[in-house]
Amino acid sequence: MDSNPPASNPHQSVVFGKNPVQVLLEHHPKRVLKVLVSQRATAHRRIKALVDQAKGLGIATAEAPVHKLETLVEGQNHQGIVALTRPRDLWSLADLTAYLDRLPAGKVPLLLALDNITDVHNVGAIIRSAAACGVDAIVLPKMGSGGLSPVVSKTSAGTDMLVNLVVVPNLANAMKVLKDQGIWWLGTSLGPTSQPYDAYRDYHYPTGIVMGSEDKGLRPVIEKHCDVLLHIPMAVDVESLNVSVACGIILFEASRQRRQLAQTVQPAQ
Amino acid sequence: MDSNPPASNPHQSVVFGKNPVQVLLEHHPKRVLKVLVSQRATAHRRIKALVDQAKGLGIATAEAPVHKLETLVEGQNHQGIVALTRPRDLWSLADLTAYLDRLPAGKVPLLLALDNITDVHNVGAIIRSAAACGVDAIVLPKMGSGGLSPVVSKTSAGTDMLVNLVVVPNLANAMKVLKDQGIWWLGTSLGPTSQPYDAYRDYHYPTGIVMGSEDKGLRPVIEKHCDVLLHIPMAVDVESLNVSVACGIILFEASRQRRQLAQTVQPAQ
Repeated sequence: MDSNPPASNPHQSVVFGKNPVQVLLEHHPKRVLKVLVSQRATAHRRIKALVDQAKGLGIATAEAPVHKLETLVEGQNHQGIVALTRPRDLWSLADLTAYLDRLPAGKVPLLLALDNITDVHNVGAIIRSAAACGVDAIVLPKMGSGGLSPVVSKTSAGTDMLVNLVVVPNLANAMKVLKDQGIWWLGTSLGPTSQPYDAYRDYHYPTGIVMGSEDKGLRPVIEKHCDVLLHIPMAVDVESLNVSVACGIILFEASRQRRQLAQTVQPAQ
Repeated sequence: MDSNPPASNPHQSVVFGKNPVQVLLEHHPKRVLKVLVSQRATAHRRIKALVDQAKGLGIATAEAPVHKLETLVEGQNHQGIVALTRPRDLWSLADLTAYLDRLPAGKVPLLLALDNITDVHNVGAIIRSAAACGVDAIVLPKMGSGGLSPVVSKTSAGTDMLVNLVVVPNLANAMKVLKDQGIWWLGTSLGPTSQPYDAYRDYHYPTGIVMGSEDKGLRPVIEKHCDVLLHIPMAVDVESLNVSVACGIILFEASRQRRQLAQTVQPAQ
């Protein structure tokens, strides 16, 4: 995910690191204004390939001193390559509801929502799992959820550019609107009504999975909007999993059950 | 996991952060030499509870200036509490083979091995998943795998103290020895003989899962020792998952299948 536009220039953002820049060039070349390469990295095989790719797309490239790149990425590990870009398009709730309305018959949506997950490593890893699972969109509250920074793009290995991100002012309200559109919300909780994530067999319905923070789990206002509560059965004494791991386990269980069902209902060859 | 003993004092290590210190006091109180609390944190509810718990166990506690704690944890986030400890016991390969020999009939081992995974966030999250899954032991090569530092203890939320860690000089050799003891090794790979992780149905046999680095996967010398290669089916365009997420998905699939089987073979109530 790209930075919120810096105050100094609201029309410019950055994407850095080899994987993110590669995804950017392959999937969103029109966003790229310029590709800057560290003077120290120009001989690096993969950097050279990315520069050639940019040139082939008619994108301006230039060498830059390391300190300039470091300033642009605010001290993060840029791996020798930084793209200056137009800010990415984020969806509104209206964009998402319009998308759901237009889904072809037989395409069953899978959404993910993040409540108060702020660690950039976790948000990046979660986006990567969601992209890998083919989720239709990730819903993030405007405040409080995982700084949509260039660092997240880096920790997601650029996969933030392969998935629709929906930023909403109020997550509980968005869940309600999406529920009215047929989404069945699954939340993680250790409460008495929570069932094992793999005992739940209805992932093939239009589904939204909402994950809460590691420390506090889902806020009550969010849990209240969940149709089903799930937990991951664990050995004694371990309080919880890393939230990005827990999210991956549930997403891929949904994916597993959907694949299994697709195989069952396919006509014999 | 604790630090390798510092050169200055080979008999002392540190464990820091609220969760790790809590696990330490609950599970390994005899290792604790002293608990130091930041002068700024003494009024904090959970820190106070930990200090009371330590005192109840007859462990010395003291307040210390923040800069002293920061020096002890080499600038990491200590959350106001640091325990000085005896170094933890790590298992050798001989310890693990002796453990496997002594396993009661009906207890089927599940092992995890890490090949060249170095990021401390990933190693910590993987240990946490392994502990949650009840794996019998994690096998780590002496060099190259995930700095067994106090930071890993922190990123694993202290769960490194709930699982047996086996440090081996040569992972390929260790896999061979364990294979001779009946362990069936599963490795992750995208090669042509790799099958979907959920299509594999034999997790209920004595199993070892070996995970490679995100960049390069398993080294050929490790892959050669695998009996089965697995992959996680993904949507197009996403190269790979975060390694701790991938590891969690496979571990919990093993756990899911084992639970399912246990339910199937249990006599009706």
